[in-house]
Amino acid sequence: MRIQFKLVICSLVLLAVATAAAIGDDILPSWRDSAPRKAFRAFVEKVTKEGSPEFVPAPERIATFDNDGTLWAEQPMYFQFFFAMDRVKVLAPQHPEWKQKEPFASVLRGDMKGLAGAGEKGALELVAATHTDLTTEEFSKVVSEWIATARHPTTGRPFTEMVFQPMLELLAYLRANGFKIFIVSGGGIEFMGPWVEKTYGIPPEQVVGSSGKLKFEMRDGSPVRVKLPEVELIDDGPGKPAGIQSHIGRRPVAAFGNSDGDLQMLQWTTAGSGARFALIVHHDDAEREWAYDHESHIGKLDKAWDEAKARGWTVVSMKDDWVTIFPGVK
Amino acid sequence: MRIQFKLVICSLVLLAVATAAAIGDDILPSWRDSAPRKAFRAFVEKVTKEGSPEFVPAPERIATFDNDGTLWAEQPMYFQFFFAMDRVKVLAPQHPEWKQKEPFASVLRGDMKGLAGAGEKGALELVAATHTDLTTEEFSKVVSEWIATARHPTTGRPFTEMVFQPMLELLAYLRANGFKIFIVSGGGIEFMGPWVEKTYGIPPEQVVGSSGKLKFEMRDGSPVRVKLPEVELIDDGPGKPAGIQSHIGRRPVAAFGNSDGDLQMLQWTTAGSGARFALIVHHDDAEREWAYDHESHIGKLDKAWDEAKARGWTVVSMKDDWVTIFPGVK
Repeated sequence: MRIQFKLVICSLVLLAVATAAAIGDDILPSWRDSAPRKAFRAFVEKVTKEGSPEFVPAPERIATFDNDGTLWAEQPMYFQFFFAMDRVKVLAPQHPEWKQKEPFASVLRGDMKGLAGAGEKGALELVAATHTDLTTEEFSKVVSEWIATARHPTTGRPFTEMVFQPMLELLAYLRANGFKIFIVSGGGIEFMGPWVEKTYGIPPEQVVGSSGKLKFEMRDGSPVRVKLPEVELIDDGPGKPAGIQSHIGRRPVAAFGNSDGDLQMLQWTTAGSGARFALIVHHDDAEREWAYDHESHIGKLDKAWDEAKARGWTVVSMKDDWVTIFPGVK
Repeated sequence: MRIQFKLVICSLVLLAVATAAAIGDDILPSWRDSAPRKAFRAFVEKVTKEGSPEFVPAPERIATFDNDGTLWAEQPMYFQFFFAMDRVKVLAPQHPEWKQKEPFASVLRGDMKGLAGAGEKGALELVAATHTDLTTEEFSKVVSEWIATARHPTTGRPFTEMVFQPMLELLAYLRANGFKIFIVSGGGIEFMGPWVEKTYGIPPEQVVGSSGKLKFEMRDGSPVRVKLPEVELIDDGPGKPAGIQSHIGRRPVAAFGNSDGDLQMLQWTTAGSGARFALIVHHDDAEREWAYDHESHIGKLDKAWDEAKARGWTVVSMKDDWVTIFPGVK
């Protein structure tokens, strides 16, 4: 029984590989046959071709993906902040002082401008206040419930349906070619944990994110880990190559991002020897998604844009290179 | 060609699985057929049996192993300290002040008692002074060179041959049964990175360890990550369930350790629902290895011993349960 089962699995894997190799085009239907698709296909063919001078053995085929703005949308603000704001409303009865205290007061009044005025410091304060004190299991449950029910304020869609269809296809294409895929995101590791596997097919042990300190203690004879407000790693900008070091321990051969927060990851990846690949998603489709770059305070793409141009990294125009943006939306 | 190659690989995988299921006994020759072997085999059979109420799907078959004292020896002191001491000697010409300054002076005089007197604080100081300032690539090179040439002071063997043969077999047995194995060690992640894959067959992305902060910077147009003396995570004791959270993101079903530093990892693992397994290696073989437990300052086994007895965790007697300890040494 056991061996038969393995045989079936094995045949399925074989079929998947055969399909991908034979008709690779068919698993990328949301990509126009323009420069970006040609570029990543050429890279993949080169590094997977045995005997080629640029062949990369499967265990070294590490690809890292940013999440916000690269795998799913990030406007009008990072989705984790919607979660934090919803948590403020849930927790407000226990914190009467929040009515007078920024940035909480702005959240409770629904005053997005006031909230924007609190800047990054305010954002970190919101996250610290709403992501702590729970045990890791409680937090995971809260996130699971939120992600299953919350809706994006302008599209009304579940957040997990605001992922980019072409990127899902790209993940499948890389996987079919033996790549091991990691998310390397500024988002919280415990915010991503509960839903990334179902949404992207990436298991939690392949997710690198920002993390806070945890306190281990016994409650009623059972061990729990309680989330503390102190930061351990901010996995953004220069924190990304650091997170890659402590979580992956080897240099990726391909990296995918969309903003200046990904610059150092792309630099780090492409500075390795042998064939390397870097891709930046440019949000230039105001009609189907959002259009923003050099001046945006969410997902600012400025230094990384210049570097991409100078180094010949692949830049995707969402408007011109993608047939579909969100799953099921033409 | 490509598909044929995959077919061959696939057949080999199939063969490996079939072989393991049929003749599992044969891959554990260094284990006597005593209680510990019976216990972990019963656990593995239970969680891999499809249709059984305790079946665990392959992606959730996470097993975590401590390194020092569990996969390789740790006497007369943690092997990473031998590395640190050798580094002190290499770096001494650049630090004339070390001749008068503890714990460096003791190291340079070869005074192990003086060094022991500096305690844990002294040890951390040694590590900080000898593990920083280098880029991650330089450090990796230094470790690779050291591990290839250094010898254990009493056995004269390379450190990578002071691994435990029965544990290598156990890793192979678990892998053949679909387990994904992680090292979760108090040792430095960058100290382990260069040699664990070759020694244990565990890739660097499955190694959780203590880590320090890194500084990302450009040197001559190339990005480097420089090791700083500040600690990010001490992956020992309560730090182990924290490291498991940020690196693995799910609770292991089996955990293996040897000392009080592993207690919280074993508690965390066994507190999950469904079948769980915890094993402690007891160093009780003064003739073939070392004998130490409750009173030792390296690898102290005291609270974890009591907990193992109270909770029925599996305890391995190196003396009674292992035919062989080190590879090639009867």
